[in-house]
Amino acid sequence: MTHDWSGGLTSISDLDRTDVLKLFKLVDNCIKGKYEKIGLGRVIGLLFFEPSTRTRLSFEVAAHKIGAYPLVVHDPSTLSISKGESMEDTLRILGNYCDILILRHKDPKTIRKAIRYAGVPVINAGSGSVEHPTQSLIDIYTVYKFRGNPDGLTFGIMGDLKHSRAVHSLIMLLTKFDNVKLKLISPKGLELDEPFRKSIESEIVLEEISDIRSIISELDVLYIVRLQKERFKENYEKYISSYSISPEILKKCKEDLLILAPLPRTWELPPSIDSLPQAKYFQQASFGVPVRMAILISILRAL
Amino acid sequence: MTHDWSGGLTSISDLDRTDVLKLFKLVDNCIKGKYEKIGLGRVIGLLFFEPSTRTRLSFEVAAHKIGAYPLVVHDPSTLSISKGESMEDTLRILGNYCDILILRHKDPKTIRKAIRYAGVPVINAGSGSVEHPTQSLIDIYTVYKFRGNPDGLTFGIMGDLKHSRAVHSLIMLLTKFDNVKLKLISPKGLELDEPFRKSIESEIVLEEISDIRSIISELDVLYIVRLQKERFKENYEKYISSYSISPEILKKCKEDLLILAPLPRTWELPPSIDSLPQAKYFQQASFGVPVRMAILISILRAL
Amino acid sequence: MTHDWSGGLTSISDLDRTDVLKLFKLVDNCIKGKYEKIGLGRVIGLLFFEPSTRTRLSFEVAAHKIGAYPLVVHDPSTLSISKGESMEDTLRILGNYCDILILRHKDPKTIRKAIRYAGVPVINAGSGSVEHPTQSLIDIYTVYKFRGNPDGLTFGIMGDLKHSRAVHSLIMLLTKFDNVKLKLISPKGLELDEPFRKSIESEIVLEEISDIRSIISELDVLYIVRLQKERFKENYEKYISSYSISPEILKKCKEDLLILAPLPRTWELPPSIDSLPQAKYFQQASFGVPVRMAILISILRAL
Repeated sequence: MTHDWSGGLTSISDLDRTDVLKLFKLVDNCIKGKYEKIGLGRVIGLLFFEPSTRTRLSFEVAAHKIGAYPLVVHDPSTLSISKGESMEDTLRILGNYCDILILRHKDPKTIRKAIRYAGVPVINAGSGSVEHPTQSLIDIYTVYKFRGNPDGLTFGIMGDLKHSRAVHSLIMLLTKFDNVKLKLISPKGLELDEPFRKSIESEIVLEEISDIRSIISELDVLYIVRLQKERFKENYEKYISSYSISPEILKKCKEDLLILAPLPRTWELPPSIDSLPQAKYFQQASFGVPVRMAILISILRAL
Repeated sequence: MTHDWSGGLTSISDLDRTDVLKLFKLVDNCIKGKYEKIGLGRVIGLLFFEPSTRTRLSFEVAAHKIGAYPLVVHDPSTLSISKGESMEDTLRILGNYCDILILRHKDPKTIRKAIRYAGVPVINAGSGSVEHPTQSLIDIYTVYKFRGNPDGLTFGIMGDLKHSRAVHSLIMLLTKFDNVKLKLISPKGLELDEPFRKSIESEIVLEEISDIRSIISELDVLYIVRLQKERFKENYEKYISSYSISPEILKKCKEDLLILAPLPRTWELPPSIDSLPQAKYFQQASFGVPVRMAILISILRAL
Repeated sequence: MTHDWSGGLTSISDLDRTDVLKLFKLVDNCIKGKYEKIGLGRVIGLLFFEPSTRTRLSFEVAAHKIGAYPLVVHDPSTLSISKGESMEDTLRILGNYCDILILRHKDPKTIRKAIRYAGVPVINAGSGSVEHPTQSLIDIYTVYKFRGNPDGLTFGIMGDLKHSRAVHSLIMLLTKFDNVKLKLISPKGLELDEPFRKSIESEIVLEEISDIRSIISELDVLYIVRLQKERFKENYEKYISSYSISPEILKKCKEDLLILAPLPRTWELPPSIDSLPQAKYFQQASFGVPVRMAILISILRAL
């Protein structure tokens, strides 16, 4: 069953493999400039209760490019919520002003409230540490662009896997494809949460690894999320070599390895990597606008 | 004498009954999508010195819909006023950049400065607790939509009448119509200020009521503004039944009563009312964009 | 050699006299409404790390008028820089989203980083106290408009010359013209820095003056930048008469003197001057939009 885009995009689990590959064809066309200005006369609301620039700006540009007006709520703290208004009322009122509502909130329940009260299709632009579906579509589009669809590939996912919503959505998206192998590389205490791991274990082959160097040669894709120093109680330095990469470590990698990252990065992905042919994270970032254009177009076509 | 829109809209007292009804025809057309893109090539400045989302966003969407560019000053604290610039200079400079200036400021004198120095038509989007003319046009447009013009109707206005600019503009607007009766229901200390009451007393029949339950059956329109807990020194709880509504209280209301509210609401208007046929406040909110479009169109036509 | 606009505009020293006069013809046309919508389909990024309204809003309006979409980063503190991202990465990512990047930052090195990493033409909208090239073009366009090109004119520049980037760019721009004479009028400690003065001394005739009254009758242009009280350790009052103007002082000025100011102003330029025919600073401010339109058009034409 294919996804009904008229409801928006609130979880990556709504999409199946066919939906994703169909969306990617649309992204190809957006990159080539072959798209209709289907947004003309439409208003697309951007309501970010957590700071965001990358996601917000790329949605703003995407909305503009397809002809729509991006209505950005720059400072939700000035919303009437501060006067005691309920989230339900706020969503109802904002839904009045727009044709699609893009929402980021730290509480995953807010997305469900938006679906119920906004009265327009909702896009989840990040809900707590739980989901970030549009980011995972950008991630896999990058793979698709360089290697075709991800069937049969081996992915290393390195960093703070516990707190990264990008990682959660990425793994959920990878379960839709065939014979994907996952190598999870994270410091103790920052592994995937047990309930989440249980929920996907039957759908994808995964293995937990304690040092990137031991498996670097096996990977087709290395996906790196940042490690925040604040997460470490002590001995921060000893993790540096096991959970970061360097030109040295990459000497053993496949020639066509794709190094991806949702960015921002800190020490785990040093600038000395940037000029290597495997480094694709800036190209990946540049796909933010066309992937989000394709999502908006898919929704507007379904209305 | 009809209103000269080329000066903008700074007080509801500028409009007479004919102006209002003419404007409402224009709102009807905006809702039907029958309007010219008269704003093309125009810039509409939004300068809000007090927080606002509802009013600001609906003006922003309204400006966009008629083809104009909304130039939003998101954080007036970054204006050169913080470098010691006078309000007069700031208004002069901003007036340079736009064709209409929409202004909210806690000091009513600022509206008068804008008229003098901005050099473009000014719209009052809220001046202290004194006036909020565009809100009152939305309020009465809602009445007009469901009951025709408000001649002969009985209005109950409940809540903090002392501090609500929406209430002041609404009452001033109602004086333009014939045989309107006002029932004012507010806790001690939050009644209409004496000077304001004196100023309208000769133009409209009004009565002060101490409990909504005693007159609910007489009302054609019930307009509810929020009561802030902070305004009460003590015994906040004892006011709840006298100055809030409930499905119980509404059992005695007319079938075609219209319940309106400028929103946000807190405890005085509970969500248990939302599904009653008398509850019109969300529809009222949805008229924010077309009423403001009609105001902008009226001004641009007059330039 | 004429300026290659495809690189943007990062220092006024990039332009020669011919570039400037050619740009001014374009400004004339922008004022008359004779310009192409060359920005259609383009995104112009505005990234201001220091507060700005005047420069930001006029660039925003200029971008819109030529058909482009202004992508404004309203609160750079929400950028991923706060998550430890390097300025280089931030500039790279933002460069992805836009066709021109307009940047203000207190550290002049950031402009050089933007040139290197943004991958799109960069406009310097103010770098520390060093440069503000677009402001100086507005200043000299105002002179050009009223007196033709500035060859042979005598300029008085009064105020805090040490900290004003507008003054630095203005003087650098004036060195491109012939026989300009500079009279610098500033309190002790707020004179032009020695290295800057040395760097321009061979290219322009300059003289330091301790009281505006002694040379007011010689000036063709008087350019006034504000004096902040905080800069003075003591005896603030005694400077008032030497470094501010008044109708009294202006009794001795030339009839066709142009009084200019980048604004905002404080006490050095009192409102009692505003109605004099010599006061041109509000007209000067109104040239902000067309001058910035002409700069954007020049860059887009060169791409």
